[in-house]
Amino acid sequence: MKPFIHEHFLLETQVAQELYHDVASGLPIIDYHNHLPPEQIASNHQFENITQVWLYGDHYKWRAMRAFGIDEHFITGAASDKEKFLKWTEVCPHTLRNPLFHWTQLELKRYFGIEDMLNPDTAESIYEQTQEQLQSSEFSAQALLQKMNVEVVCTTDDPIGSLEHHAKFREQDSGFSMLPAFRPDKAMDVSNPEAFAKYARQIGEVAGIKVKDLHSYMAAVNERHTFFAEQGCKLSDHGLTVIDSVTFTGAEIEDAFDEVMEGKTLSIEKQLMLRSFFLLEFAKMDHEKGWVQQFHLGAIRNINSRLLDTLGPDTGFDSIGDYSQAESLARFLDTLDQSDQLTKTILFNSNPADNEVFATMAGNYNDGTIKGKMQWGSAWWFLDQLDGMEKQINTLSNVGLLSSFVGMLTDSRSFLSFPRHEYFRRLLCNILGNDVAKGYLPNDRALLSKLVEDVCYNNAKQYFNFS
Amino acid sequence: MKPFIHEHFLLETQVAQELYHDVASGLPIIDYHNHLPPEQIASNHQFENITQVWLYGDHYKWRAMRAFGIDEHFITGAASDKEKFLKWTEVCPHTLRNPLFHWTQLELKRYFGIEDMLNPDTAESIYEQTQEQLQSSEFSAQALLQKMNVEVVCTTDDPIGSLEHHAKFREQDSGFSMLPAFRPDKAMDVSNPEAFAKYARQIGEVAGIKVKDLHSYMAAVNERHTFFAEQGCKLSDHGLTVIDSVTFTGAEIEDAFDEVMEGKTLSIEKQLMLRSFFLLEFAKMDHEKGWVQQFHLGAIRNINSRLLDTLGPDTGFDSIGDYSQAESLARFLDTLDQSDQLTKTILFNSNPADNEVFATMAGNYNDGTIKGKMQWGSAWWFLDQLDGMEKQINTLSNVGLLSSFVGMLTDSRSFLSFPRHEYFRRLLCNILGNDVAKGYLPNDRALLSKLVEDVCYNNAKQYFNFS
Amino acid sequence: MKPFIHEHFLLETQVAQELYHDVASGLPIIDYHNHLPPEQIASNHQFENITQVWLYGDHYKWRAMRAFGIDEHFITGAASDKEKFLKWTEVCPHTLRNPLFHWTQLELKRYFGIEDMLNPDTAESIYEQTQEQLQSSEFSAQALLQKMNVEVVCTTDDPIGSLEHHAKFREQDSGFSMLPAFRPDKAMDVSNPEAFAKYARQIGEVAGIKVKDLHSYMAAVNERHTFFAEQGCKLSDHGLTVIDSVTFTGAEIEDAFDEVMEGKTLSIEKQLMLRSFFLLEFAKMDHEKGWVQQFHLGAIRNINSRLLDTLGPDTGFDSIGDYSQAESLARFLDTLDQSDQLTKTILFNSNPADNEVFATMAGNYNDGTIKGKMQWGSAWWFLDQLDGMEKQINTLSNVGLLSSFVGMLTDSRSFLSFPRHEYFRRLLCNILGNDVAKGYLPNDRALLSKLVEDVCYNNAKQYFNFS
Repeated sequence: MKPFIHEHFLLETQVAQELYHDVASGLPIIDYHNHLPPEQIASNHQFENITQVWLYGDHYKWRAMRAFGIDEHFITGAASDKEKFLKWTEVCPHTLRNPLFHWTQLELKRYFGIEDMLNPDTAESIYEQTQEQLQSSEFSAQALLQKMNVEVVCTTDDPIGSLEHHAKFREQDSGFSMLPAFRPDKAMDVSNPEAFAKYARQIGEVAGIKVKDLHSYMAAVNERHTFFAEQGCKLSDHGLTVIDSVTFTGAEIEDAFDEVMEGKTLSIEKQLMLRSFFLLEFAKMDHEKGWVQQFHLGAIRNINSRLLDTLGPDTGFDSIGDYSQAESLARFLDTLDQSDQLTKTILFNSNPADNEVFATMAGNYNDGTIKGKMQWGSAWWFLDQLDGMEKQINTLSNVGLLSSFVGMLTDSRSFLSFPRHEYFRRLLCNILGNDVAKGYLPNDRALLSKLVEDVCYNNAKQYFNFS
Repeated sequence: MKPFIHEHFLLETQVAQELYHDVASGLPIIDYHNHLPPEQIASNHQFENITQVWLYGDHYKWRAMRAFGIDEHFITGAASDKEKFLKWTEVCPHTLRNPLFHWTQLELKRYFGIEDMLNPDTAESIYEQTQEQLQSSEFSAQALLQKMNVEVVCTTDDPIGSLEHHAKFREQDSGFSMLPAFRPDKAMDVSNPEAFAKYARQIGEVAGIKVKDLHSYMAAVNERHTFFAEQGCKLSDHGLTVIDSVTFTGAEIEDAFDEVMEGKTLSIEKQLMLRSFFLLEFAKMDHEKGWVQQFHLGAIRNINSRLLDTLGPDTGFDSIGDYSQAESLARFLDTLDQSDQLTKTILFNSNPADNEVFATMAGNYNDGTIKGKMQWGSAWWFLDQLDGMEKQINTLSNVGLLSSFVGMLTDSRSFLSFPRHEYFRRLLCNILGNDVAKGYLPNDRALLSKLVEDVCYNNAKQYFNFS
Repeated sequence: MKPFIHEHFLLETQVAQELYHDVASGLPIIDYHNHLPPEQIASNHQFENITQVWLYGDHYKWRAMRAFGIDEHFITGAASDKEKFLKWTEVCPHTLRNPLFHWTQLELKRYFGIEDMLNPDTAESIYEQTQEQLQSSEFSAQALLQKMNVEVVCTTDDPIGSLEHHAKFREQDSGFSMLPAFRPDKAMDVSNPEAFAKYARQIGEVAGIKVKDLHSYMAAVNERHTFFAEQGCKLSDHGLTVIDSVTFTGAEIEDAFDEVMEGKTLSIEKQLMLRSFFLLEFAKMDHEKGWVQQFHLGAIRNINSRLLDTLGPDTGFDSIGDYSQAESLARFLDTLDQSDQLTKTILFNSNPADNEVFATMAGNYNDGTIKGKMQWGSAWWFLDQLDGMEKQINTLSNVGLLSSFVGMLTDSRSFLSFPRHEYFRRLLCNILGNDVAKGYLPNDRALLSKLVEDVCYNNAKQYFNFS
């Protein structure tokens, strides 16, 4: 019987099959945004078992397990690695139609060569089989990336970070690049004065600049920005509900900064002003260095106080928000564009109801200087599944240029997530194949191959300009 | 020629056909939310003609008739039952692609065995045929439910209601259960002080508790809640634009309550506080009794003043609103969860643009204690059609667990609406069949059958725990 | 090899093919909303080359070119017409999956008989071929419309306009009608006091009424409204972010009007009041004359200040907004309905996330007096593509009556855009054909043909009542 993950998985037409196998499948992966731990890559970490590489930190699986009624003991609790794995195998068959179902089988096949469906019957055998394989050097952290033909991975890093693991990695000959990305979320979160003041002093220490006012703080951040650039950083990233963009005077933000450093809780208005200021200044730094700036907008985060207290952030208690995005986003981009300081930008929305808002907003600031300067990013987080990616591809096609799209990224905390690029590529080829079958596109193989190659590799290569 | 409603209606693949006929079609119906009149069920009402059972109270048909340019005289006016029916048959063929078109033919076939398309040519004959059938005891209110293999129906009841019809019904041996649901919308609507004060005194009278302040009012409501539980009630329901969830002090709400009881119009802030308080307290009562709480959110209601004055509410002048839902909903659920008082909950959204917000919000409060504790409800009201249901099923699949879904309900005021369960089941099987055909799902019949059976029956059976 | 635009383009089933070729294709076009220049129609303008008729003023193509990295010089700049065309042909193949790709080939085929794909290889030849054809009288402005079987075009006109071109056109025997539409956007935009005061005085001059207060201003606008009606106008149009609908007193708006005429910047509240007042009064004028009123809502406009300064409005720097629409829209429509002054109305939304809100909102104010009185308009602007139109058709079908829909319009600034009606008609027939193929609709050819004919022609004919 044909295994579930077979040669033509998701490829319904011959055109799709040919586009995928002849063009897409052999292209290297530029994973320009993920959350892999640099330490594990630099140290070429060896995992003890599949739970460690697959279930630790994967809040997608955790949410599914909680929804199925599995006790937290077996999710993030004290249960053994094997117990946790076995519980996951009970849930897995019932994730039918969730991306986890496809991801699971794709990942078992691509990394471990396993074609059995994961369920309680196969659980023991798969646990043992993978455990054995994971002991081999062919399953080290770096080997896992090499196996997937990864050319570049960009980690997500705090401006106070030393990037020591990136430096250590550069001394090795791993056949791919690991570059940092500048994520200054904490550098602009003034909601908690103590946390912010502590962070500001830290960044000053790392930068060798004493932070005594807004001016010296910005100098310290800029110093870190430059340091990141020296370490090969080519892009920044922001995780925000909305882009704040209110007007302010220099005096207002200087005073607000002093206040927050003194530990005073700022009024909402002052928080808005400071954040608006920071966003513009960080964006100008990115522009000066020719970086790409990324904005991940619209999630509502950390809304389960009880479990947040126990488990901390990024454990599965975030969801999709419904914020008004268009006006403030336009103000922000326009302000930068007016002074010709708008750098290459990728906008990601959390709520698919915002797809058309984001896709058309990006188009307003293309000025013909760079192909695809303003990007609407790939389907993100909860939307990173066939429907979500198809909607993103369709909307981008309809109101922008699919052909200029820089394509997929994993945005993942797991070393086993790289088949998501395969998943995306198969889907893309399938969409094109179906269009040809319906007569919506001419069967011009050169044109279609060019598009596939550009979206899967060339565009990102050219756009990010990684060295 | 094959009739329009034939054996494989909506079932495009063999897998779909087998799943539907072998698994879904024979399962009983648990209709956990509808608006049927308990009196007609308890008295086993006999309808005189098809207009009475089909057109009275069906605002879906009314809206279609108005859109087609039919005078109100023939809709809710003084025209005879037969005249109204004849007018509907003029409109019916032109509802093509509206769910009414399918519902009409499904209902004619399932209840009356009629396969002719309803239109002016067949109108007279169908009117006579159905009129004759409706005289028979096989077409009594209870018989209509039995014919559809209904196991449970939950009506929607005001807390002041005596539930006398439910009591009377329990004395009969009807082969199915009719249970009340607690719908305290009026018990928290403080926008009209006179109406509220009157209602509050009434509830006090029914509860045998003199309402003189907030404390005694809550005691009275709680008394009714307990009474409902004694009558077999297992769930509450709320129809609201949004979940209000602002902070308040005990003194603030006590004063606000006194004000409204004195007939004073409350400020918007005070109304918000009181409603926020009521919602939390009602939710805690539900938790204490292990009930399921349902929230139907986001409709904009009664917005045609002219026709509302003539015809009253629920006559077709409500539509889909565009309210921000996420933040206040999260605050509400989190507040309850913090004190471990969040009961099983079903969230229904009116606007499909909120699908992903609701689906992912529910997932934040699954804590592993109950399978599918937090539910995102079936496509509701305007969305109760193939596209709407498919979107709900797809989004739920993508960001949650379809396998834990408690499934379909009629939410209807008509005794002839139960084929909507068939409609849903056929669609569900068709979606799964198409997934298998595309290679998106393995053709694992045991797994697929389990899912169909769970979503159509088992999950609801287990979740609601009806006796 | 079959050309890309062939007989059955987009028609996947035999039913679709028959519906399109036997019913839809031969119907005249009633283009009830576009932005063609009356002067060019009245003077029967002859274009020098394809750039003038195809690229001048087409911000869809401009945005695509900017996204592809083409310098503004070749878009709206000083480059020659031929250079601009050649640049467009470089981009065109890479618009794959954007409506521009289909539009391009459809328009080349229908107007010029060209079947070659437009790309750099065919560019020179196509430029020459079309240049030659455009010299002929068969390619004059009027001939281009006649070729497409246009029966009526409604231009979009400022109330201060003389309509001289419409008058001149009426003296000719062109085989179709050109009628004005009343677009009073400037007559209610009080955000810039100087611009408004100037406009108000102008309208007074044109109307022969000295504008000294709100009363005389409204008299002047009404005078223009009557003048438009005398020139055959049957509909108004509004381009707004939202329908403002706040309460006000007579004194408040009179004072606000005096203020703005004195050049004072009005508070946001006063602007809202004045706009709310104007909208109601303009709507009452429309009702008095039996016109149709159109509202195009929800775009966010002119948000690229830098390029707006250089290029002016309507040059590609508008996008889709995310405004709350339902409550104020309901208040506005309800206010008019209460005094029985709600005329036939078409609501267009910019954001597809508002589809269901708009579709169901329209249904609230159908009162049975006119078939399809309240319309939810065709997919507009960014949504005028296969996906957008299909979503509009599906949502309208699901929550309203597709059969009463007045159908498609071009909303275009280009004489070559009329194949968009063909595009819409093919899509409509294809959707119906697919429904029949899936068993979702009976293969009742009379019923389906009637629907196609009504939506493509009859409904608009009857609804607008053009003379």
